[in-house]
Amino acid sequence: MRYGVILAGGGGTRLWPASRRALPKQLLRLFGEGETLLGATHRRAQRIADHALVVTAAEQVEAIAADLGESVELLAEPVGRNTAAAIGLAAVHLVARDPDAALAILPSDHHIGDDLGFAAAAAHAFALAEGRGAIVAIGARPTRPETGFGYVELGEPLPGEDHGGARAVRRFIEKPGAAAAVEMVASGHYLWNTGITFARADRLLADMARHLPDTHRALVAIQQALADGAAAAAGRAAALYPGLPSISIDHGVLEHVTDLVCVPGDFGWNDVGSWSALAEIVPAGPDGNVSVGHAIAVGGARNNITVSDPGRVIALVGVEDLVVVQAGDAILVMPRARAQEVRDAVAALGRAGLDRFL
Amino acid sequence: MRYGVILAGGGGTRLWPASRRALPKQLLRLFGEGETLLGATHRRAQRIADHALVVTAAEQVEAIAADLGESVELLAEPVGRNTAAAIGLAAVHLVARDPDAALAILPSDHHIGDDLGFAAAAAHAFALAEGRGAIVAIGARPTRPETGFGYVELGEPLPGEDHGGARAVRRFIEKPGAAAAVEMVASGHYLWNTGITFARADRLLADMARHLPDTHRALVAIQQALADGAAAAAGRAAALYPGLPSISIDHGVLEHVTDLVCVPGDFGWNDVGSWSALAEIVPAGPDGNVSVGHAIAVGGARNNITVSDPGRVIALVGVEDLVVVQAGDAILVMPRARAQEVRDAVAALGRAGLDRFL
Repeated sequence: MRYGVILAGGGGTRLWPASRRALPKQLLRLFGEGETLLGATHRRAQRIADHALVVTAAEQVEAIAADLGESVELLAEPVGRNTAAAIGLAAVHLVARDPDAALAILPSDHHIGDDLGFAAAAAHAFALAEGRGAIVAIGARPTRPETGFGYVELGEPLPGEDHGGARAVRRFIEKPGAAAAVEMVASGHYLWNTGITFARADRLLADMARHLPDTHRALVAIQQALADGAAAAAGRAAALYPGLPSISIDHGVLEHVTDLVCVPGDFGWNDVGSWSALAEIVPAGPDGNVSVGHAIAVGGARNNITVSDPGRVIALVGVEDLVVVQAGDAILVMPRARAQEVRDAVAALGRAGLDRFL
Repeated sequence: MRYGVILAGGGGTRLWPASRRALPKQLLRLFGEGETLLGATHRRAQRIADHALVVTAAEQVEAIAADLGESVELLAEPVGRNTAAAIGLAAVHLVARDPDAALAILPSDHHIGDDLGFAAAAAHAFALAEGRGAIVAIGARPTRPETGFGYVELGEPLPGEDHGGARAVRRFIEKPGAAAAVEMVASGHYLWNTGITFARADRLLADMARHLPDTHRALVAIQQALADGAAAAAGRAAALYPGLPSISIDHGVLEHVTDLVCVPGDFGWNDVGSWSALAEIVPAGPDGNVSVGHAIAVGGARNNITVSDPGRVIALVGVEDLVVVQAGDAILVMPRARAQEVRDAVAALGRAGLDRFL
């Protein structure tokens, strides 16, 4: 069977003041839409897979169940140990109930504009994962020389069927500088690394055994405990997780896999890594202002991004290239070009004893 | 007896989003203080006079009584007809109960930093109004070449006693241009026109009879109705007020008075005519940021003005010379130098069908 494994354990402050300690990014309703980023991910997972499973942190279980409904299957990690452990935990649970389980690994805090386009790429990726036992990364065709994303360098086309334009992966590239990004995008040989990955559970675990043996040993122990039920496995995980290395699936496994496959996709992917990303997702008005929520702009105000809760309004007079965000009891104002510096504002609030706004 | 006549009928949008249709400027708690601008005016009136009276619009009676307490004496105008009518209405009511009534006319939406300094100037002004039958304007010594205020040009010192440096008034000057303002302030012969005025009630009414005969005729009719009680006078006012000209006491009377007297004062006066005025009242932090409410500034954010409700926070990253105001459900962002353009934002909200935020 096909399984959607949704990774929903993240916290993060890049979208403060909307995201808070108690309200991580995946639980935000960012675009004035009715559903959260997680809710949209879950909906897409149900479209492409037979069953969806959410891996999250113990302290987020309640909020996630409230968002997705009590019937959702949740796997709670006792502590966060990055994506390699989270994916491994899902893999041992799923392989135990279905030795042929094929997984779609889905970050829960990304935006996808075109669900059908995504489903098409996912169908190719699942077919490659199941038919060839491949590990398949989904790459998004870059629309601009973004320096905030990682890239995948494409190799040769796969022999045989087209499989949606699937290619071998030559290597991963970390967030590049501006000049390198321009060159990569112009070349046509590079895709954005979305972090969306497809593989059989047993293939993933085999690669973990090779590249992350300590993690794999713990996962096998948890899988053995599963024979005594989910509670026994959770107890074993609680004992073993604190000792696991905190490492991403990219660094821990995928970068060492020599036969990695990439399926390209054009489905309006964005990881919404900062407030300035909204301008790539939400259409701008005639004066270049991008608004989520009520906003008015006068006096030549242009090229601003405003975000506010329902029932609020943001009025701009003559300002340009700003981000103005109201969420709950907090307001953030900064130049669009400096959206990464939200973290400094968050740190300053902590230093000022204003943690209650975090 | 001495009476404080507090003018509290104004609306105005210059301090939106704090001021709203239902919450005029005089009812704002602007400086994180416990009292409203009106409350502070009332407190000062009780300090300088034997009795205080508030003239307001019928629709504001409830809110004002809630602010000042049910025991406050309120005189409600059926419709607003600017300050000449409001002051005349108070004068006929007070002269009917006290032929020697001396009035301090007090706008309710100004800020005064030094209550003792104000009381000293008021004592001189009352003495001149009572002793010489003068109409006395209070002038504030300018601390900068402000183009947002009117000015009073001073004439000769009064003969006899000093009376706090009282001088004859040569003329009123409307809001000047920048060059004229610099010249006037440098000369030392000009004071800011505060609108705070002292006179006996009978003197004011005599000048109204001369310069605003239609208004005076209506006021006399209202005074005659007073013999049958306050309700009768209110009924007469309701019938006559709609026909009155809408004119200020300055244009209608004071500019035509040739023996006007001015008492100078140094009491931190500010009419808080726009958000940028806050920087003249609230001390700035080391980076030049002026804050009412919680705020943090990082990334070189400097010379900004932030205002927010209790329990909210405004975070600034790297922006300069902005005004950021959060009040209730609305947020305003604009350059400090363009604070007068709030009215354009208010007008745009109306056009956009967002009246509920006004």
